[in-house]
Amino acid sequence: MKQPITIPPRSGTAFRLEKGDSLTVIDPRGEQVSDLVAFSAADVREAISSGRSLDYASKLYLTTGDAIYSNRSNIMLRIVEDKVGRHDFLLTPCSRETFKIIYRDENPHQGCFGNLEVALAPFGVGPDQIPIAFNCFMNVVIHPATGVFTVEAPLSRPADFIKFRAEMDLVVGLTACSALQSNNHAFKPIAYLVERWAKT
Amino acid sequence: MKQPITIPPRSGTAFRLEKGDSLTVIDPRGEQVSDLVAFSAADVREAISSGRSLDYASKLYLTTGDAIYSNRSNIMLRIVEDKVGRHDFLLTPCSRETFKIIYRDENPHQGCFGNLEVALAPFGVGPDQIPIAFNCFMNVVIHPATGVFTVEAPLSRPADFIKFRAEMDLVVGLTACSALQSNNHAFKPIAYLVERWAKT
Repeated sequence: MKQPITIPPRSGTAFRLEKGDSLTVIDPRGEQVSDLVAFSAADVREAISSGRSLDYASKLYLTTGDAIYSNRSNIMLRIVEDKVGRHDFLLTPCSRETFKIIYRDENPHQGCFGNLEVALAPFGVGPDQIPIAFNCFMNVVIHPATGVFTVEAPLSRPADFIKFRAEMDLVVGLTACSALQSNNHAFKPIAYLVERWAKT
Repeated sequence: MKQPITIPPRSGTAFRLEKGDSLTVIDPRGEQVSDLVAFSAADVREAISSGRSLDYASKLYLTTGDAIYSNRSNIMLRIVEDKVGRHDFLLTPCSRETFKIIYRDENPHQGCFGNLEVALAPFGVGPDQIPIAFNCFMNVVIHPATGVFTVEAPLSRPADFIKFRAEMDLVVGLTACSALQSNNHAFKPIAYLVERWAKT
């Protein structure tokens, strides 16, 4: 049986998915966020779009059965199983600037954004093309009247996961998130498992 | 005294702003949304980013004093006066696909997305580069526990406005929104006024 691959704390990776493949993003220790971005393998200018996906779903919190649409309004991924039910699709990957502006770090980590930039470069995706991520397990709590939000500890417990099906051939970027607030102040690994569509 | 320019119902335009210019987006009749997008004039791959702007502000509803950041974490625009206080920065411009998916239209209007695509083409901005818009006057009401949202009538009354200052040289796209729900089911014009920074 195929084993999940581990993404070490504060790092990232990128890989191809074929249409029909499934991708399971696993939180081995609990309370760890994983930023997911995806691009059409045929043309990486087509990318996941939070604005389209949320508009078509008429809700902020996507879960089992919901689709992630591209900027061209095509379905790129569908959530087929979700043990947590609370993920974020509002915020961009943390970056050097995030750590400077929000955390006042003088020597900031490159963050998920820098990790994705490095991982996606071989696939022809430049940094300006990195969209708002689907932030698996990220728990953003919104005060409805004011719109003020806080980033709280993820609701994911050890071994919880979210499983996606690729609805087109994709390039996927995936991280173990590098921001303190998002991960209840402890940097932990993420694991993922790709299962190939059986071509028989 | 300079007069505002009118954007007819269900249409859009694009224009340059220089750093220091102010842009006032006016809702002449009330309850009409205007989608605003902006790009760096020096390199249109730099564009407004809802994900960065909301993250740095830690709130969904931007108003007087708040900044609109780019995907490179630079401040592009700042809100300097706001008579309404409720705008949306979550959703993408309405498009042919919006009207097909949400409204089940068989012969869909090209929407704000199509209007922006046409208006921005002479500035070298392609459709894949059109980001989540700052939707002036759009009133998206979120149910906090479920994240389900509804698009309600704008809170803007006749002659209400929001005023921005350009913090870099910009290409701006601006519409009179074409979606029924967003505009309390009546398509109305938008007006805008550009005031040049006095170079004395």
